[in-house]
Amino acid sequence: MSGNKQADAAVIVVGEELLSGETTDTNGSWLGRRLAALGVPVVRRWIVGDDAEAIQAALSAALRIADLIIVTGGLGPTRDDLTRPAVADLLGLDLQPDPNIVDDLRERFRARGISDLPTNNLSQAEVPRGAQVLANKLGSAPGLLMEHEGRSVALLPGVPREMRGIFDDVLADVLRDRFEDRLVPLVHRTLYTTGIAESVLGERVDEVRAGLPEEVDLAFLPGLRGVSIRISIRSSADVSAKFLDEAQAVLDSVVAPYRIGMEKGDLVEAVADALTNESYTLAVAESCTGGLIAKRITDFPGSSTYFRGGVVAYADQIKIELLGVDEAVLVENGAVSEVVAAGMARGVADLLNTDVGVGITGIAGPEGGTPEKPVGTVWYAVSVKGAVRASHRVFSGDREAVRERASQAALRLLYQTLADGP
Amino acid sequence: MSGNKQADAAVIVVGEELLSGETTDTNGSWLGRRLAALGVPVVRRWIVGDDAEAIQAALSAALRIADLIIVTGGLGPTRDDLTRPAVADLLGLDLQPDPNIVDDLRERFRARGISDLPTNNLSQAEVPRGAQVLANKLGSAPGLLMEHEGRSVALLPGVPREMRGIFDDVLADVLRDRFEDRLVPLVHRTLYTTGIAESVLGERVDEVRAGLPEEVDLAFLPGLRGVSIRISIRSSADVSAKFLDEAQAVLDSVVAPYRIGMEKGDLVEAVADALTNESYTLAVAESCTGGLIAKRITDFPGSSTYFRGGVVAYADQIKIELLGVDEAVLVENGAVSEVVAAGMARGVADLLNTDVGVGITGIAGPEGGTPEKPVGTVWYAVSVKGAVRASHRVFSGDREAVRERASQAALRLLYQTLADGP
Repeated sequence: MSGNKQADAAVIVVGEELLSGETTDTNGSWLGRRLAALGVPVVRRWIVGDDAEAIQAALSAALRIADLIIVTGGLGPTRDDLTRPAVADLLGLDLQPDPNIVDDLRERFRARGISDLPTNNLSQAEVPRGAQVLANKLGSAPGLLMEHEGRSVALLPGVPREMRGIFDDVLADVLRDRFEDRLVPLVHRTLYTTGIAESVLGERVDEVRAGLPEEVDLAFLPGLRGVSIRISIRSSADVSAKFLDEAQAVLDSVVAPYRIGMEKGDLVEAVADALTNESYTLAVAESCTGGLIAKRITDFPGSSTYFRGGVVAYADQIKIELLGVDEAVLVENGAVSEVVAAGMARGVADLLNTDVGVGITGIAGPEGGTPEKPVGTVWYAVSVKGAVRASHRVFSGDREAVRERASQAALRLLYQTLADGP
Repeated sequence: MSGNKQADAAVIVVGEELLSGETTDTNGSWLGRRLAALGVPVVRRWIVGDDAEAIQAALSAALRIADLIIVTGGLGPTRDDLTRPAVADLLGLDLQPDPNIVDDLRERFRARGISDLPTNNLSQAEVPRGAQVLANKLGSAPGLLMEHEGRSVALLPGVPREMRGIFDDVLADVLRDRFEDRLVPLVHRTLYTTGIAESVLGERVDEVRAGLPEEVDLAFLPGLRGVSIRISIRSSADVSAKFLDEAQAVLDSVVAPYRIGMEKGDLVEAVADALTNESYTLAVAESCTGGLIAKRITDFPGSSTYFRGGVVAYADQIKIELLGVDEAVLVENGAVSEVVAAGMARGVADLLNTDVGVGITGIAGPEGGTPEKPVGTVWYAVSVKGAVRASHRVFSGDREAVRERASQAALRLLYQTLADGP
């Protein structure tokens, strides 16, 4: 870090629909992440309506606390769009039509078969004196960048993909030059885990926390498919990489077993790699997950090279008639049992003529639980060339949570079985 | 509306993780919706870090423009949690420990087997003089409500379910009494459509727009499963209901055909009702959707009464061997064709012994398109007691969009076929 004070940013998001909650503000958090990564952290954010006075009040306050102010939204062609004149007025800059933008707008409308540029749209060509125009490849409103008493003020459209496009294509580089030695980038690395509860993971990490470099921060991010650990550090890139490596080595001494197959964050991708390596084909037989595992596998383009198909055996009769589960065994042990899960895994591999089969059967709820088998009880099994491994869990949460967690557990067993080999 | 000026609200959301974009602010939009519905619209929102000065700056500004200020976040037990002292300081109120809250905290910790209340948590029992305590059933930090120079200031925890719980269980009623005749509630009604593009829907609506009551606003909300039209009005409940009914009647003159089965917003529910009415059983055979339709059907608890199961026939061999699609026909017409979709629908109903079968086959992309059958081409068919109806579309969008849109189109054909009867 240089001797100069680190540069700070503020963000002003304009839009009535954000205040009323019809839309959730994702531009603010996206800019928060991008600006943190660039090295100009956001220190305050305003959400204001389509109201010149509110935009000016927020900008005045922002100019007092930040080196960079980004205003997003309100650059469209309708009379609700007040950002451009409100900002120009506060900064004491005249608005002048920019001939290049006018030409560009004419061209856009001509391409859509409209030869006369609507008067409304002319307002989008107005530029505050001295402002730099930031090209918008995806829409009609360009971004604008102004300097004011040592502060930079950027205006970006509110449409997320246009805002993101201008930021990534143009503005990020301009800001990198502008703030140069006042940037302190925030860098993350994420370790994906699955099959361990957040509280237990936290305890494991606490055992080694003293060994972590002081420079890094940890965050635990729980989801239905696992808990991610995010390591963060604010520093220059080379220094960051060293500390991130150190931190990862320390964490891996306790969490590595739960990261198996999760290098990329999605277990389905790891399963795909493992199947492809062995040239194995796969079929799945699902009861409680009702197609979710097949859906997750086929979310990936190219899954047809190893995935042949599946059976959703929701009714017990289908488990028996189509998958060959023994009726007497099913009646004796119940549909949610090790033998039935194993029979489904073996049965679907036989039926669809694959090397590997997965079977899963459980009680997703909210009804159907018993004292011995409460809601959330799930048995799952993997058959590789006829050799079967099975496991079970009682998952917590509502129907959706049980189904998501169960699909992840079955994929984890599948991955481990493939990784361990025959 | 009374002669009194309508009451306005401002929201201050506290949390460093929101500024850095690690978390998206959903509390702000949730409060925006609840306060609009209550009749105190939000006119500005601040996102600030865990920083007393920033909290006070935002609160000072908010007190100048709003009658009600809700501050959410920063009520936890750690030294990052500064909301309580920062607000009390600005409003000139002493903080005093509340014996009831202390007892409640002790009880909570005792229930977790901790007999000594940690000193940190004692800060959560501190209450600004004169503040009303708002019970929190779901966590340790209660909400607080203060009056200051004719303004109301409420502090709520940042954990969404706790914040929502306190608002719905306690605060909403308190505010209803507090602002009484200054409330102008915003009321919505949503008409769900499917099977019509947003632009076409917009044109249809434009034809009848002149007949709509002036008091209502319309918003079009497009999604992968259809476009919803939201009718909004700000008025008292009885007046609103009349105008909403009027508006719906006008809109239904053009959109009713696309609302079929979508009264509740989810086509799967409508399909469930239609199947249950006829006492029909259902099976599905999926290729391109890879289990998504079965998954959507089994998202509903109770689907086991009509859904027997499905086959994911990803490989063509499974369409032929398991579902009985004629190999020569498949080769001649291609796997993505009317005859194959029809054969799958009939085949899966035969295989799983159901009244109704659905078949779907298509090219989800990104690879696999041809000039005659581009990516997005999908054929789908419904068989009811052996009588088959089929349809096809070329869906736009990426793999996920094509799969979602295709599943919706197949469910729509299923619903229509059931509604039209044999």
